Amino acid sequence: MNYSNTFIPTLREVPADAVIASHILMFRSGMIRKLANGLFAYLPLGLRSFRKVEQIIREEMNAAGALEIKPTVVLPGEIWKESGRWDSMGEGMLRVKNRLDNDFVVSPTAEEAVTAIVREELSSYRQLPINLYQINSKFRDEIRPRYGLMRGREFVMKDAYSFHRDDESLDETYQKMGRAYRRIFKRCGLSVIPVKADSGAMGGSGSEEFMVESDIGDNTLILCKKCDYAANVEKAGCAPDYTEQTKVADETPLYEKIDTPGVKTIDELCAFLNTSPQAFIKTLVFRAVNVDLNLSDAPGCKALSKKVNSTYPEVFFAAAIRGDLDVNEAKLAALLKASEVSLASDSDILRLTNAPVGFTGPVGLKSLPLIADQTVTAMTDAVTGALAKDLHLKHVAYGRDFTAWMTGDIRTVKPGDLCSVCGGELYEKKGNELGHIFKLGYKYTRSMRVSYLDENGKSAIPIMGCYGIGVDRTLASVIEEHHDEAGIIWPASIAPYHVIIIPIKYDAQVKTAADRLSEELEQAGIEVLLDDRSERPGVKFNDADLLGIPWRVVIGDKGLAQPSPQVEIKRRCEKENRMVDLDKAAEELAKKIREELAELNS
Amino acid sequence: MNYSNTFIPTLREVPADAVIASHILMFRSGMIRKLANGLFAYLPLGLRSFRKVEQIIREEMNAAGALEIKPTVVLPGEIWKESGRWDSMGEGMLRVKNRLDNDFVVSPTAEEAVTAIVREELSSYRQLPINLYQINSKFRDEIRPRYGLMRGREFVMKDAYSFHRDDESLDETYQKMGRAYRRIFKRCGLSVIPVKADSGAMGGSGSEEFMVESDIGDNTLILCKKCDYAANVEKAGCAPDYTEQTKVADETPLYEKIDTPGVKTIDELCAFLNTSPQAFIKTLVFRAVNVDLNLSDAPGCKALSKKVNSTYPEVFFAAAIRGDLDVNEAKLAALLKASEVSLASDSDILRLTNAPVGFTGPVGLKSLPLIADQTVTAMTDAVTGALAKDLHLKHVAYGRDFTAWMTGDIRTVKPGDLCSVCGGELYEKKGNELGHIFKLGYKYTRSMRVSYLDENGKSAIPIMGCYGIGVDRTLASVIEEHHDEAGIIWPASIAPYHVIIIPIKYDAQVKTAADRLSEELEQAGIEVLLDDRSERPGVKFNDADLLGIPWRVVIGDKGLAQPSPQVEIKRRCEKENRMVDLDKAAEELAKKIREELAELNS
Repeated sequence: MNYSNTFIPTLREVPADAVIASHILMFRSGMIRKLANGLFAYLPLGLRSFRKVEQIIREEMNAAGALEIKPTVVLPGEIWKESGRWDSMGEGMLRVKNRLDNDFVVSPTAEEAVTAIVREELSSYRQLPINLYQINSKFRDEIRPRYGLMRGREFVMKDAYSFHRDDESLDETYQKMGRAYRRIFKRCGLSVIPVKADSGAMGGSGSEEFMVESDIGDNTLILCKKCDYAANVEKAGCAPDYTEQTKVADETPLYEKIDTPGVKTIDELCAFLNTSPQAFIKTLVFRAVNVDLNLSDAPGCKALSKKVNSTYPEVFFAAAIRGDLDVNEAKLAALLKASEVSLASDSDILRLTNAPVGFTGPVGLKSLPLIADQTVTAMTDAVTGALAKDLHLKHVAYGRDFTAWMTGDIRTVKPGDLCSVCGGELYEKKGNELGHIFKLGYKYTRSMRVSYLDENGKSAIPIMGCYGIGVDRTLASVIEEHHDEAGIIWPASIAPYHVIIIPIKYDAQVKTAADRLSEELEQAGIEVLLDDRSERPGVKFNDADLLGIPWRVVIGDKGLAQPSPQVEIKRRCEKENRMVDLDKAAEELAKKIREELAELNS
Repeated sequence: MNYSNTFIPTLREVPADAVIASHILMFRSGMIRKLANGLFAYLPLGLRSFRKVEQIIREEMNAAGALEIKPTVVLPGEIWKESGRWDSMGEGMLRVKNRLDNDFVVSPTAEEAVTAIVREELSSYRQLPINLYQINSKFRDEIRPRYGLMRGREFVMKDAYSFHRDDESLDETYQKMGRAYRRIFKRCGLSVIPVKADSGAMGGSGSEEFMVESDIGDNTLILCKKCDYAANVEKAGCAPDYTEQTKVADETPLYEKIDTPGVKTIDELCAFLNTSPQAFIKTLVFRAVNVDLNLSDAPGCKALSKKVNSTYPEVFFAAAIRGDLDVNEAKLAALLKASEVSLASDSDILRLTNAPVGFTGPVGLKSLPLIADQTVTAMTDAVTGALAKDLHLKHVAYGRDFTAWMTGDIRTVKPGDLCSVCGGELYEKKGNELGHIFKLGYKYTRSMRVSYLDENGKSAIPIMGCYGIGVDRTLASVIEEHHDEAGIIWPASIAPYHVIIIPIKYDAQVKTAADRLSEELEQAGIEVLLDDRSERPGVKFNDADLLGIPWRVVIGDKGLAQPSPQVEIKRRCEKENRMVDLDKAAEELAKKIREELAELNS
């Protein structure tokens, strides 16, 4: 392809709103342009790389037995009402009414659509397992879209949904998808951190996220310095560090009230009592939305009623944790099967506990279900709020003075905590999620009433998995990982072209040699961009570095004047260039490129 | 691919709402399923054929020098306001507000988006011409979606937009696109009728539609029995058939009023005056929307003012035509540069002409601009309405008793009219539009203020062309043209698989032979579906016919028991089958398929 026949509007300047490398370089190299905040158009150069990522994903999905389908981008609102997500998805989902007043959704994801398709066709266990995927446009109405393709409003996602007879079959497909994802990222030349969602200590895994390290990442990852343990902080666990476990409650004096006038925070309390935060039980009140638990026996919940889709729209809980730790809202939400959890307002706290903020405590708390972190169950002589202004309790023992309605791991793991797998020290990184594989369970097949007849002719409900990859984000991440101050450095598998040929002046014998080399390379299946513009060589060199084409060939009169005519070749990722015979250049370049592709695809 | 590893839910029954072959067969063969009215999901089999159509279009567009880009599906409303189409597009365009109250459009087409992209990058004449295309999802909110993929709400369209320095450059690309479209349809095995939009008599062409004949077509085509003239009735012209042209007005008696109590229609008037419709001038009042004409000197228009986008939002016109003819609203709209034209209401007619419906006439009409069909300009002794109840005029002569504000061809051509090119008889057909190439002119580049510097350093505005193809509709049309009562008959280029292998029983030596043949074919680049299901042979044969795979191979014990083992091969489009040596089957099939592909692609 001759440069003058394509459309590659390179820029010297950096767009004002671009702060990360991929955003800056995709703009400067003319790969993308902005249509509106969070909406980007791929120009020809960008689309070539985009299609390569897409094709790698497609090949690996097909190789893993998944079948490609194509639902519409605009989906009927009806199926989102069936699943309950019409209510729970929040404002990020773009809802539309058409002229006939029907509800539609601009697809943010497609669990409902694929479940609806499978529901109509599934009759026998013989049809299972089945794994259907699409590579299609999605829309999420980000409030603050930014970082270019890393957090856009419209994006392309590969999303797969599998249906199974049992856990074993689901696990088999889940493992296949995990292997396919590893291959996809390897072929793209990306270093990803596969992040198990469960704490390793619990064994098994129902969710794995594929992260790339990024200073502007949405996610905090917890990693072990000694082993390969890696988890999203929203799920990360750590080895128990319960102090004072040896004391038993019998040895603890009976609890008693202490006056703590004006003392509200743990720090103030530590100073006041001259002790450490580890000695406190911190009790917080949370508001949870769409809670999918049975609360019929829960304190303070008698009057609550479920919504049509069988969740409780709003429930308040108390959560207790050791004073030096923080409650992790994501973990708490998972435990409560809630779509959202946040701290209750001061007025709600006063109304619900009869005490102001800072004096909530677990002893005698009857108006709310109490969730206790595991650390609390080990505490036998603690200080807590007394459910009354300016009062605390000391010598409080779990099991003797109070018990929780539910216990679990709700602590936020921090750097310095110890690995639950190997005991090594944990540290944290910021990361962006490129892919996610997830055992969905029965959420959609139950709510949308999918069934089949099993081997015994009995009706059964299939279990589901889902598997997503952001295509644009994957492409942008390749640039994040492979660039320098001059521009992009493409891996051969994703490069828009493999070779850029720069004639010093596209004229006479130089033109003849450039055209000939271009043709020889293209006949060998190598993708070539021939810079036929009448720009100064310096401009062409800078653009070649910016575009990041893996191999550059410079053709000039001087090289051609050698006894055996020569051209200069240089790899984008290396500093050195060297002269090769024009006659052998195509063969050598094709060999190098095939080697790199083979290495990436191995 | 083994049948049991894919997802091809065939049906015996015809869906209740399916009336045309493509809709029925795509459902029955498990190619598509309905998500909602007008929204269809492609299942794996359907998507394979869809992707082949897409790829043929892509290859031909690239070969013609067009460059692929990918704007978003959801577009900012802002650019539609710039072009004026936010107002003029009507309710078929799906408008959305996001959570920040910004306006968006679910793209029905992309003139604005591509113009906005080019506007930002275009600076010099050296960048022109440029032709950018996308293959992407579109949405039009059809009130009555039907006929499956033929008239859905969401569909995929290839839409290209070209920008040029002058008419010559535009015409060159326009002709290239015309040739590319002919190749695309040929490669898909489709017979299309290219329909010039201008009447042949006017010479030159700025628009060509590619139609397929269809009983349920949206379009009426006018074709010539003698030559290859073909036009949409909305644009079709015919040879002049003006009678009584020899009389001159001087010979016509002065016009006079005649009492016609209670006589309103042409038929009643013919009976009353004992004459023929050809002797009348029919005058109708139309309401036109968004009129892009200069009306400052037009009768009755002094008080009108233009909108921001410089069109008149609502204007009433009178249109006169010979009594045996009908006014064509599409032609009238084109003449008036209006986005929409429709008959005025009875009350508007009374208000504007001071006479009830049926008595409008051209003589003395000062309250409305009069548009006269060419036939009227030839009339020298006509009967017309008298602009008063129960009164008509006779002996009315054009040029003497009235003249029009504008004249033109606004008649609806009918079967039996004569061809303007060769004088042959015209006839009509119903057709569906698959593609359209169109010289857009300056509509978007002017309204959206696109400019570049020409050779002399002066600012100039580029001229545009646009070129669309419906991908789903093209696919469905292939089925419309290639099917029989048993199912689809795919051309090799679009077939989801080239060969279906049916083992009578997938077991023992039959299984071995089937697996071997499948592997040999796949190694030769032939796409194979191996029906490994444990269904009765009759069921497999019926499904094979329904799916329409071009070649069928049946493998059974009897054939394999021959001294030289044999299999039965049959072409879907032929009745006869024959036995071939298993050893030579792959080679022979591959040869036949390559020949068919070469023929389609030639």
